[in-house]
Amino acid sequence: MLPMSQHAIDSLHTLRLRVREFAEARAWERYHNPKNLVMALSVEAAELLEPFQWLTPEQSRQLSAEQHEAVRQEIADVLIYLARLADLLDIDLLDAAADKLALNARKYPIEKSHGNALKYTDFQK
Amino acid sequence: MLPMSQHAIDSLHTLRLRVREFAEARAWERYHNPKNLVMALSVEAAELLEPFQWLTPEQSRQLSAEQHEAVRQEIADVLIYLARLADLLDIDLLDAAADKLALNARKYPIEKSHGNALKYTDFQK
Amino acid sequence: MLPMSQHAIDSLHTLRLRVREFAEARAWERYHNPKNLVMALSVEAAELLEPFQWLTPEQSRQLSAEQHEAVRQEIADVLIYLARLADLLDIDLLDAAADKLALNARKYPIEKSHGNALKYTDFQK
Amino acid sequence: MLPMSQHAIDSLHTLRLRVREFAEARAWERYHNPKNLVMALSVEAAELLEPFQWLTPEQSRQLSAEQHEAVRQEIADVLIYLARLADLLDIDLLDAAADKLALNARKYPIEKSHGNALKYTDFQK
Repeated sequence: MLPMSQHAIDSLHTLRLRVREFAEARAWERYHNPKNLVMALSVEAAELLEPFQWLTPEQSRQLSAEQHEAVRQEIADVLIYLARLADLLDIDLLDAAADKLALNARKYPIEKSHGNALKYTDFQK
Repeated sequence: MLPMSQHAIDSLHTLRLRVREFAEARAWERYHNPKNLVMALSVEAAELLEPFQWLTPEQSRQLSAEQHEAVRQEIADVLIYLARLADLLDIDLLDAAADKLALNARKYPIEKSHGNALKYTDFQK
Repeated sequence: MLPMSQHAIDSLHTLRLRVREFAEARAWERYHNPKNLVMALSVEAAELLEPFQWLTPEQSRQLSAEQHEAVRQEIADVLIYLARLADLLDIDLLDAAADKLALNARKYPIEKSHGNALKYTDFQK
Repeated sequence: MLPMSQHAIDSLHTLRLRVREFAEARAWERYHNPKNLVMALSVEAAELLEPFQWLTPEQSRQLSAEQHEAVRQEIADVLIYLARLADLLDIDLLDAAADKLALNARKYPIEKSHGNALKYTDFQK
């Protein structure tokens, strides 16, 4: 086991390589096709949903230290599968997010979206 | 609208700030509590699941250009909500992923996990 | 098109047969393996999640007629895939639910669960 | 504990009443608003996804007895939350499913859908 400091990951690119190594070291490539990975990612997203299901919105803003750590681990699982999927599909995660934010800025212009959570398909014509 | 080059995002930290600005410019803070955000993230994870539901694993490795772009956008949505959630809960995504990979390395030692997809709770004692 | 009254379905057993006919008439059996169907069911569950993501719990109790109808359709989709999956796996849905309720009654005894939403694994010893 | 035969549930209507009694006996009404219940249902749908994530479609058709029983319990959980949600929203599940099947028959006419899994929005004009 390496000392903890060795585990530092300083970019999404490094994360992607680490997750790839992790999978290859276990010969998990045959399980890691995109179909299976989106399933795994959905399972992790639901595990992130679970600790919040009975909380009020207010309680969800004030997690205990124990709840916060559990949530942090589930968030990590989602990111790990996202990095693995991006690796297999050769997608740059930050570029994809930047493009999507630019698209969302057009779909949700401030003058139509300020203070409401309407879906763009529901805007008044 | 800024020219596309202005939209470049070079780190998860920058993404987090951009997503925060996006929400604040629309006064969406009142909708963005952790409970609501994990729901939104799960919805996006399922939208990522949808294009794969009827594909074989083999087909999922060979997406058309159109399918690939659709998947790229859904992956971006998941990352955007992950960044927003991490911002609200003050979680460093890369640190969280590094810690979780270290934990997974202990839960899934190579000698027990090589070539199988068993959950660690199902290892033979 | 049959008149609407012909579409009446009076039991889960009838629903199961109707969904089977629907799939067979379209030669969808090759898509309907359990793996694909649980994916489809998860997608529908998330479509049911979507209209609630930005609502407060109080608002979720007071849906407009339009919201109620949209939710009714998503609930129907979940049940339809549940019936299809039960058919393929030869599971009696009501028996399964009865058995699970009996199990839950043992896992969540009234004296430990009254007025709280603790998971049984979190009960004080 | 009642003898097992007492637990028999002969219709969705009876299931709905049993689930309501179960919740009321534990004073869970305050947790059971529609927003929370759709989250719980999504969590259960993902627990149903989990045992299938690394299986091939072929393997998913040939579950071991142990896998089958685990899947049966997750299917039951989904149905239980569906019944609870339908109770709160006063929705008749079988009527909703019948209406949705009639709608799907119009959206997916046999001549356009035979042998393919295209979404109706992707049919050739």
